Amino acid sequence: MNSPDDVIAALATPVGEGGIAVVRVSGKNAIAVVGKSFYGKVSLDRSGSHTAHYGLFFDEKRKKIDDIVTTVFREPHSYTGENTVEISCHGSSYIVKKIIERLIESGARQAEPGEFTKRAFLNGRMDLAQAEAVADLIHASSEYAHRISISQLEGRLSHKIQQLKEKLIDVCGLLEVELDFVEEEIGYINSEKVGKEIHLIKNQLDEMIDSYESGRLSKEGVRVVILGEPNVGKSSIFNCLIDNYRAIVTPVEGTTRDSIEEHVSIDGVIFNIIDTAGIRHSEDIVEKEGIKRTYGEIQKSDIAIFVKDCTNVNGSQLSDENIENTLPKNSKIITVFNKFDLIGFEKGKIKDQLAEDVQVFLSAKTGFGIKDLKGKLLEASKLKDLPEGTESIILTNLRHFNCLKEANGYVSSAVESLDNKMSNEFAISDLRIAIGKLELIIGVVTDEEILNNIFSNFCIGK
Amino acid sequence: MNSPDDVIAALATPVGEGGIAVVRVSGKNAIAVVGKSFYGKVSLDRSGSHTAHYGLFFDEKRKKIDDIVTTVFREPHSYTGENTVEISCHGSSYIVKKIIERLIESGARQAEPGEFTKRAFLNGRMDLAQAEAVADLIHASSEYAHRISISQLEGRLSHKIQQLKEKLIDVCGLLEVELDFVEEEIGYINSEKVGKEIHLIKNQLDEMIDSYESGRLSKEGVRVVILGEPNVGKSSIFNCLIDNYRAIVTPVEGTTRDSIEEHVSIDGVIFNIIDTAGIRHSEDIVEKEGIKRTYGEIQKSDIAIFVKDCTNVNGSQLSDENIENTLPKNSKIITVFNKFDLIGFEKGKIKDQLAEDVQVFLSAKTGFGIKDLKGKLLEASKLKDLPEGTESIILTNLRHFNCLKEANGYVSSAVESLDNKMSNEFAISDLRIAIGKLELIIGVVTDEEILNNIFSNFCIGK
Repeated sequence: MNSPDDVIAALATPVGEGGIAVVRVSGKNAIAVVGKSFYGKVSLDRSGSHTAHYGLFFDEKRKKIDDIVTTVFREPHSYTGENTVEISCHGSSYIVKKIIERLIESGARQAEPGEFTKRAFLNGRMDLAQAEAVADLIHASSEYAHRISISQLEGRLSHKIQQLKEKLIDVCGLLEVELDFVEEEIGYINSEKVGKEIHLIKNQLDEMIDSYESGRLSKEGVRVVILGEPNVGKSSIFNCLIDNYRAIVTPVEGTTRDSIEEHVSIDGVIFNIIDTAGIRHSEDIVEKEGIKRTYGEIQKSDIAIFVKDCTNVNGSQLSDENIENTLPKNSKIITVFNKFDLIGFEKGKIKDQLAEDVQVFLSAKTGFGIKDLKGKLLEASKLKDLPEGTESIILTNLRHFNCLKEANGYVSSAVESLDNKMSNEFAISDLRIAIGKLELIIGVVTDEEILNNIFSNFCIGK
Repeated sequence: MNSPDDVIAALATPVGEGGIAVVRVSGKNAIAVVGKSFYGKVSLDRSGSHTAHYGLFFDEKRKKIDDIVTTVFREPHSYTGENTVEISCHGSSYIVKKIIERLIESGARQAEPGEFTKRAFLNGRMDLAQAEAVADLIHASSEYAHRISISQLEGRLSHKIQQLKEKLIDVCGLLEVELDFVEEEIGYINSEKVGKEIHLIKNQLDEMIDSYESGRLSKEGVRVVILGEPNVGKSSIFNCLIDNYRAIVTPVEGTTRDSIEEHVSIDGVIFNIIDTAGIRHSEDIVEKEGIKRTYGEIQKSDIAIFVKDCTNVNGSQLSDENIENTLPKNSKIITVFNKFDLIGFEKGKIKDQLAEDVQVFLSAKTGFGIKDLKGKLLEASKLKDLPEGTESIILTNLRHFNCLKEANGYVSSAVESLDNKMSNEFAISDLRIAIGKLELIIGVVTDEEILNNIFSNFCIGK
């Protein structure tokens, strides 16, 4: 069994070669464990918190493994809240391996994934939602995702959950008072107050639950599939969006057979853009397989860019309905008329001939309209506005989402009991469960299994 | 143009996601540059050397990029010898990018590959051979390579070069004295001393030059090709050596068509083991291509394991001569008789029938003899004995090797002039050039181009 007194050690920096690597060691005896192999001007045992020391690190045979710099953090002033030593060595996998082996010989054990952060949580340095935000922050690859995780790490989500929890406790209190004085006047006043309060809470829960869609997209990226009949210029548009020349563009129909995917950041939002094979009836086996995959991609996408050819408006066999029926619920279509350069700027004239749902006129060849298309993508993603104030909380974590949905279910059930004039006991019981679900988010109540599950998704060394 | 006063910044840890990442900032004004975006308890400007400070790092709009720990090193007590700040942030590529962007806005510039180490060299923190050893140390993936680079970083190679250089200067001095007093008795005494001294120097140069083969193998790994006729069990031996089941083993002849390569460490030495297609006459086009590649692999190998079948001793069409003629000069053959399990332990009887050059009896099926084979590999690699004492210097760097070879050439030429009783002037001139070549190794004489070439092979952030 792992004990909280264990000294744990792990590589904290990414695996690979680099200028330096950092091995983190934490636990009551961390300083003594490192001290066994460290030789510097000052003994680590006598060094103050937040001090760095150059010296040599030796193996068990007193052979030098490396020149290192150790930084000492004394409890509780460290990431974990425990005594911690960070060993900065040359960025070689071999050296890191030797150092960790030596630390294990000296009484440390290899840290489990997320164990440093788990200890920070157990030692009260952060609550559970904040601890989970650490993993999100590390994985954040866009400004949007970064801002959300920074805000969660600062405790804004936790603060909001705490507020809602306290309000629910207040409501429970009022309902209990009413229960005690069920025959008296006080009942009427409370009912009104309780009804108002509980609806406010429900609104806020709904809002947070709704925000999960944005949160999920910000983490995973918005899936955008480019589709249309063959030779309307899908690959050219794909190349314009990703700003290089990955997809092979030729004037031959059916060039793209495999779906190609690239990530691109537009105004801080990550889009996963997928180029697909053109949709048409084909007898070519390979092309048929490509078209089959295209339909697969459509079914997984958040946004579809439906490309039509300006010069062949009436020749289209694919209708918006065809596409709409394939798209998943909640996803958006952006209809684009490409090859606008070929018909000059007679936009007014053309527009009359075109369906009114055409949203973007484009020339992938000249780049005309690409900015417009990017704007439309941002709009359709619903992620354009970054959360600025303290008002908007964006959920990004599936566990939080599920806890909130469950809490919301119990709040709804409480509302229903009250509306049906059932005894307050029913509502109180539901609200208490809802409070428990909210507490799960910030980790007031936790069992070891839930914790292990959460932290096992972290990387080693965090 | 880059100025030595520039503040340089770069990610010092490997690229990727991890618990933490470290951005290193160095230069006269490094502390002020970081201070512009750092908000902690103490101002960095007023913090002492070797102190660590928790705080927030902001972007230009005063939005928080991350919680960080900065460690301040004041000149000359840093890796580069300059004021240095190490910023330890969450290990996210996005955060690292934002922090470096902000540092550049604040007056730093992106460091070039190896620029921190180049500055350490220019500021006299290490000589050139030591600086080059830093890159070797980072890339070292075996105990052998690690020990050599640690020894070079400690300056043992540099010390040896310095010694040889001083001895050559002494010899030049003696030759000059002789030149001044060419008519007198002193000439005879010096000639003898010079001859003795110069031969000692030449021996040491030869020894170091010879060590390069070991050094190169320790860096790149020893290439071992497993070859033989089809179905003698080459892939089974390969799997035994690499200790897993990568190669597909079937009783059908000609199973291995592509060469397969794996790295394995035996007693701290890296071997690159290559499994090949069996060699025989074949009409199958794919198999023919495999056999062609086998010959290609043989021509690049340091050691060949020539596998024969115990149960079919006389059926072999391949002779040792066939193989020897294909192998490069200096490479070794280890002949192995496989399937020893099938003939029981009648080793004595079998041995008589076998050529006396059979070195290992093996059963890949039972594992019998694998340890013996590994021992033979170590022996053939000439890398078995690690350099323990201060005596043996192992060259690993091609630049050093070339400098020493050139120096040695000029020393030989000097010996020749002296042997031919030519005027000392010729020898002195050659020895001076040899001294210059030695100086190039430790970097006494350097031009910017040589330096740039050396450090451009480093990773960014070192």
